[in-house]
Amino acid sequence: MYVRNNLRWRLIFANSWRNLLAFALWSAVVCAVYGPLNLHSVAIPWQPVATLGIAVSFYIGFKNNGSYDRFLDARQIWGGIVNSSRTWAMQALEYITSRVDAPDVDAPAATATELTLRHRRLLYRHIAWCNALRIRLRQQPELWDTDVAPFLDPAESEVMRHRQNPATHLVREQGAELRRLREERGLLNDFQHVSMMRTLERLYDLQGGCERIKNTPFPRQYAFFSYVFVWLFVGLLPLGLIGEFSRLGPDHIWLTIPFSILVSWVFNTIEVVGHTSENPFENQMNDVPMTALCRTIEIDLREMLGETNLPPRLAPVDDILY
Amino acid sequence: MYVRNNLRWRLIFANSWRNLLAFALWSAVVCAVYGPLNLHSVAIPWQPVATLGIAVSFYIGFKNNGSYDRFLDARQIWGGIVNSSRTWAMQALEYITSRVDAPDVDAPAATATELTLRHRRLLYRHIAWCNALRIRLRQQPELWDTDVAPFLDPAESEVMRHRQNPATHLVREQGAELRRLREERGLLNDFQHVSMMRTLERLYDLQGGCERIKNTPFPRQYAFFSYVFVWLFVGLLPLGLIGEFSRLGPDHIWLTIPFSILVSWVFNTIEVVGHTSENPFENQMNDVPMTALCRTIEIDLREMLGETNLPPRLAPVDDILY
Amino acid sequence: MYVRNNLRWRLIFANSWRNLLAFALWSAVVCAVYGPLNLHSVAIPWQPVATLGIAVSFYIGFKNNGSYDRFLDARQIWGGIVNSSRTWAMQALEYITSRVDAPDVDAPAATATELTLRHRRLLYRHIAWCNALRIRLRQQPELWDTDVAPFLDPAESEVMRHRQNPATHLVREQGAELRRLREERGLLNDFQHVSMMRTLERLYDLQGGCERIKNTPFPRQYAFFSYVFVWLFVGLLPLGLIGEFSRLGPDHIWLTIPFSILVSWVFNTIEVVGHTSENPFENQMNDVPMTALCRTIEIDLREMLGETNLPPRLAPVDDILY
Amino acid sequence: MYVRNNLRWRLIFANSWRNLLAFALWSAVVCAVYGPLNLHSVAIPWQPVATLGIAVSFYIGFKNNGSYDRFLDARQIWGGIVNSSRTWAMQALEYITSRVDAPDVDAPAATATELTLRHRRLLYRHIAWCNALRIRLRQQPELWDTDVAPFLDPAESEVMRHRQNPATHLVREQGAELRRLREERGLLNDFQHVSMMRTLERLYDLQGGCERIKNTPFPRQYAFFSYVFVWLFVGLLPLGLIGEFSRLGPDHIWLTIPFSILVSWVFNTIEVVGHTSENPFENQMNDVPMTALCRTIEIDLREMLGETNLPPRLAPVDDILY
Amino acid sequence: MYVRNNLRWRLIFANSWRNLLAFALWSAVVCAVYGPLNLHSVAIPWQPVATLGIAVSFYIGFKNNGSYDRFLDARQIWGGIVNSSRTWAMQALEYITSRVDAPDVDAPAATATELTLRHRRLLYRHIAWCNALRIRLRQQPELWDTDVAPFLDPAESEVMRHRQNPATHLVREQGAELRRLREERGLLNDFQHVSMMRTLERLYDLQGGCERIKNTPFPRQYAFFSYVFVWLFVGLLPLGLIGEFSRLGPDHIWLTIPFSILVSWVFNTIEVVGHTSENPFENQMNDVPMTALCRTIEIDLREMLGETNLPPRLAPVDDILY
Repeated sequence: MYVRNNLRWRLIFANSWRNLLAFALWSAVVCAVYGPLNLHSVAIPWQPVATLGIAVSFYIGFKNNGSYDRFLDARQIWGGIVNSSRTWAMQALEYITSRVDAPDVDAPAATATELTLRHRRLLYRHIAWCNALRIRLRQQPELWDTDVAPFLDPAESEVMRHRQNPATHLVREQGAELRRLREERGLLNDFQHVSMMRTLERLYDLQGGCERIKNTPFPRQYAFFSYVFVWLFVGLLPLGLIGEFSRLGPDHIWLTIPFSILVSWVFNTIEVVGHTSENPFENQMNDVPMTALCRTIEIDLREMLGETNLPPRLAPVDDILY
Repeated sequence: MYVRNNLRWRLIFANSWRNLLAFALWSAVVCAVYGPLNLHSVAIPWQPVATLGIAVSFYIGFKNNGSYDRFLDARQIWGGIVNSSRTWAMQALEYITSRVDAPDVDAPAATATELTLRHRRLLYRHIAWCNALRIRLRQQPELWDTDVAPFLDPAESEVMRHRQNPATHLVREQGAELRRLREERGLLNDFQHVSMMRTLERLYDLQGGCERIKNTPFPRQYAFFSYVFVWLFVGLLPLGLIGEFSRLGPDHIWLTIPFSILVSWVFNTIEVVGHTSENPFENQMNDVPMTALCRTIEIDLREMLGETNLPPRLAPVDDILY
Repeated sequence: MYVRNNLRWRLIFANSWRNLLAFALWSAVVCAVYGPLNLHSVAIPWQPVATLGIAVSFYIGFKNNGSYDRFLDARQIWGGIVNSSRTWAMQALEYITSRVDAPDVDAPAATATELTLRHRRLLYRHIAWCNALRIRLRQQPELWDTDVAPFLDPAESEVMRHRQNPATHLVREQGAELRRLREERGLLNDFQHVSMMRTLERLYDLQGGCERIKNTPFPRQYAFFSYVFVWLFVGLLPLGLIGEFSRLGPDHIWLTIPFSILVSWVFNTIEVVGHTSENPFENQMNDVPMTALCRTIEIDLREMLGETNLPPRLAPVDDILY
Repeated sequence: MYVRNNLRWRLIFANSWRNLLAFALWSAVVCAVYGPLNLHSVAIPWQPVATLGIAVSFYIGFKNNGSYDRFLDARQIWGGIVNSSRTWAMQALEYITSRVDAPDVDAPAATATELTLRHRRLLYRHIAWCNALRIRLRQQPELWDTDVAPFLDPAESEVMRHRQNPATHLVREQGAELRRLREERGLLNDFQHVSMMRTLERLYDLQGGCERIKNTPFPRQYAFFSYVFVWLFVGLLPLGLIGEFSRLGPDHIWLTIPFSILVSWVFNTIEVVGHTSENPFENQMNDVPMTALCRTIEIDLREMLGETNLPPRLAPVDDILY
Repeated sequence: MYVRNNLRWRLIFANSWRNLLAFALWSAVVCAVYGPLNLHSVAIPWQPVATLGIAVSFYIGFKNNGSYDRFLDARQIWGGIVNSSRTWAMQALEYITSRVDAPDVDAPAATATELTLRHRRLLYRHIAWCNALRIRLRQQPELWDTDVAPFLDPAESEVMRHRQNPATHLVREQGAELRRLREERGLLNDFQHVSMMRTLERLYDLQGGCERIKNTPFPRQYAFFSYVFVWLFVGLLPLGLIGEFSRLGPDHIWLTIPFSILVSWVFNTIEVVGHTSENPFENQMNDVPMTALCRTIEIDLREMLGETNLPPRLAPVDDILY
């Protein structure tokens, strides 16, 4: 996620100089053919080009709405992950106490040490889940060792990393742990058990939401033609402008070039801007800042566990928060 | 679902060459009448055509929004099916344990073998439900034997396939199985029973959402006129353009043909693009990839059961994921 | 609900010939005044008419969005009714069993016959509710005898039909029946009782949603002006076109007539199309197909009861499903 | 809420004659300066005015969307109040029975008389809540005596009317009554108690939704400029039209007046129409019909209590339902 | 939040005079170059500028929609906080009574004094949470002493203020208090315990929603280009107008200046208006009035506790409610 209020011109230029050059060359060619070569049939009337331009504007507007909604959806899902993480932690810490309150379970009260271990395992596995989901979305399996494994028992980590979808099985393992807490250890009563299972259900919904956005691109037929139409309009632009400019005087025709570049750049930028938020989980500049959010969760949960050696919040790198 | 980032031009051409030809012929006729035949009354002023074009753009934009929302809705419902499938599996596996915890039921603890069988039946019937829903939506009853029957007892499969709506009765059968587990076998307590019934309720909501989209087309009065208006605009287009082009010079009139084709193609494509996502359950190129999602569910659930001979994920065929 | 993919031209013509005639007459009058009578002051410049046309397009677009959303909302509510009907049936059939599991109730186990009767009563009353809601929305109280009464005890039917709002009292009667099952007969435990009451709560939400759409029309100030503006634009249209056409030559002015009819028809059709989905419960062509949905519910529920003499699904009449 | 299908022209005229006069005067002034006074510099080119007009159309369209959504939101909240009222009544009537089913409460079964009193109190206080909410939203504290007090004990009514926000405390009083029913009288068990508290929670959500709409106007910066821009456009309109009309002939310039009035009226009406639904709780023509909805609730609830002297439904006054 | 119905012109002028001056200077330069300096090549045709203007209008419209939705979202979240605060208070006051109803807890009934203290602590800590969330969103840690500390035990206040995110830990502390009430003091039964934990879960969702809006700005790529495009259009505007005006007569060219200023101001204002609601938690004029809402919550909750020395509602300062 880009965090600077205004984009740096350097960045804009770096992303668009190739297109600007193309616009310049094409309009220069048109001017040369019309002016020096005096081939006036290259000109087309402006009005139909304008109508096309407006229709294309609508279409890009529609596509940008869809793209922005994808980003927003993705960001809201990750917001939900933050919220549910805190809920999960609060439930684990305040439901699971030394007291054996499951009916019909005969077991000793939990010691402070046991409780700490059990709390820690439930919260650490949750952090592992967040990170596992993130690196799967960003297709970075190489980060497992640094970002997921430290929050799991080594054995569990090895089993999980070879699952088809580790995040799914981590949530299920939380469910298995709740079962053991309820049935074997007796530290959860039925109300609490069902209530925490509901939180896991919500985690599945959130995880599935991310996978839906990741696996279902913005429908290609919509997205692709937005790109095609813009280039088509940009191609017709100098042909339509040259006649209008030449009407203002013979030396005016060269003004077609800067003006053509400007208008082409605007339409192209609108298209590109929408394009950038289409896919919010690609480890790129316009991603949902999942790494930072995972870190926030880690800090919150470890602070709730009473830990004090907390990692720092992530800071943007080159104006970008990942 | 088309998965390639950019559509292949081959595909675009295959879908639009008939229309392109029609545009070409019609504008050629107009040019011939205006130029060689010198019948100038065929020309109409461009301005009103432009106004019509903009109004039509709005209208198609509105229709495309509606069509896209139908696709999105369908995809989100199937996302919900994936999520609820995992929840169902986690509940079945972690709630139903060897322990008899229903009150007032006198029964022996379940053996590992019995448990495996019971878990498997609940999860397999769920996979059968996903597939039964899919083949009903796509109207492919012939796939029952390969896609649904293997996940059911043969007798149950026979009964179900002759129901008016097999998916409805499969969910109800899950409810009946839960009842038996609670009342006869005692492996579910009341909390767990009600909680799993809630998951079945959610499955009914998801199934009903699919049936709603399938049975209620995009209102025909909206959709049909979008098509009519575009062709009407396309028909008027060369009549409006010819006067504008002829004003630039007599030899310019033939430029009407390529330009007319281009603009007609853009408007027509916008209309067609919307059209393609109107009906997301037709076993076509722009469908929600239900077969692939059913496979994902199958893999997840069977892996949760501890099975290892998992089927592979589905790959796109000719860039299309079904 | 109109079900044919393309509207029949016959139908379109039947609905619009009066307007087409009006457009034709008005533009003919304008042409006659301008041409033969040579009264050129009748012409107005096209540009401002175009601006007005675009503003009006926006406004109709906005209204159509609102109208379509009303239809969609209505359809989703009825989809919810289908889903909740299945849930209600599953809960009734699988929660209410021979076993007396209410605490502190001393009663004999239910016989198969008693159960069948009780299940049937709960499901039939539900079918009665769906139908009662439908005929109230469509203001067809005369259908009570054929569509509601057969699903109720005669005495209950008589009481209910004279209530101010029968559907409300039918749901409440279901609640009373649940109370008796829980408190007197002991066939529901508290979990199940509360859970089924929740389903009734949802039915109230769905019923209230229908009544909201029925009783609150699309705000008249928005809808009425859409109609006024279109006719205003249509009235100005030939006045604006005549000047543009006459500029192409004196004999061109008569072309104003067909062109004027066309553009008027497009704007008018856009307006009318929106208008048709404003009120989805009026027993008209563009209604939510409530009769068909009620039948679907009836089939599903009676099949769940094990009945085999099921009524057929409803088929469209003249391309329309009611 | 205006209920007639078409607005009466009388009403429209009454609301807009001042503006129409202003438009007429202003355009007459412009014509007089351009024509008789021959001061041609008053004319400005039409094209930029048109561009401004389109930009302004967009902006008003955006504002109207927001205004309409506010009305819709308000109406849906009140729909929710109707639904939750029925749910509340059903719960009160069917949960609170003669049977003492709260655990550990030793109390006698309730008599029919006691039950009637208790049911009545819960339902009447609910009606009081609806009315108290309504008169607070409409700032009509003088209606307390006629619309709220009759549904409360006199003492309770006096205490409540002096609370900062009576509706809030009425809901809380329902919560207190539930507590007494559960803890002291034993007529609610825990399932029922929590379930009814959930309904109260929902009432708080609905009440809060109304207060949000009431206390947070449509952002003034958005709304105010919509008004300013329209008047600005209306002011420029005859300046832009005069040139276009004069081009058609010297006597054409006076046509600027009627045409200017028409276009001004359309733009102004679009703006005003949006404005009217901005604030749906002001006791005006376009309000959500809260009085009628409160009456519907009163009828439903009192009929459920078995009362027969029900008040009539409210009818529109001068086409307006309050 | 600005509360006056119409913005004061003083305020508008104060915010825009710099821009107005810039527009005036730039168009004056253009006029001077075109007129006195007679350098006609500075003029460009209007039509393409108009097309650009329309495309830019669309784009700003899209951005304004997004910005407005952010404000609306923020306001709805804070509405939810008000609602949940009342629910929390009602639950605390009506669930926690003198009666010990937790199973298996052996403790004496609570005295009135103890109850008052316990109720007060739960409600005051909630007020502290609202205020802590607010001052964190507005980055005003200096307000802790006056706005948060008075509602907490001094010790708790000190611990909390040094947490990374005090609001998170305040909710968790409520959870810990509920645990003590259930397990140690026995004043909550399991139904009530889980139900209040659900309210805390909802508070986490609301808090997380605020943090999401605060931490994720409107995507910079969308917002920034809206600003750039408007200035680009404003820059081209006089170049395009000058030709149109000069066509009406040589002295007309100076009219370019006022007209240019006007149109520039409209486009610029539309852009700025959207900009202002992008970030609703910045302690600025267009903020969600969080201080006032926190005060409302404080009044409601303290009145529920029976306190009478309630603070006054907040009034707007210079038409602005904070």
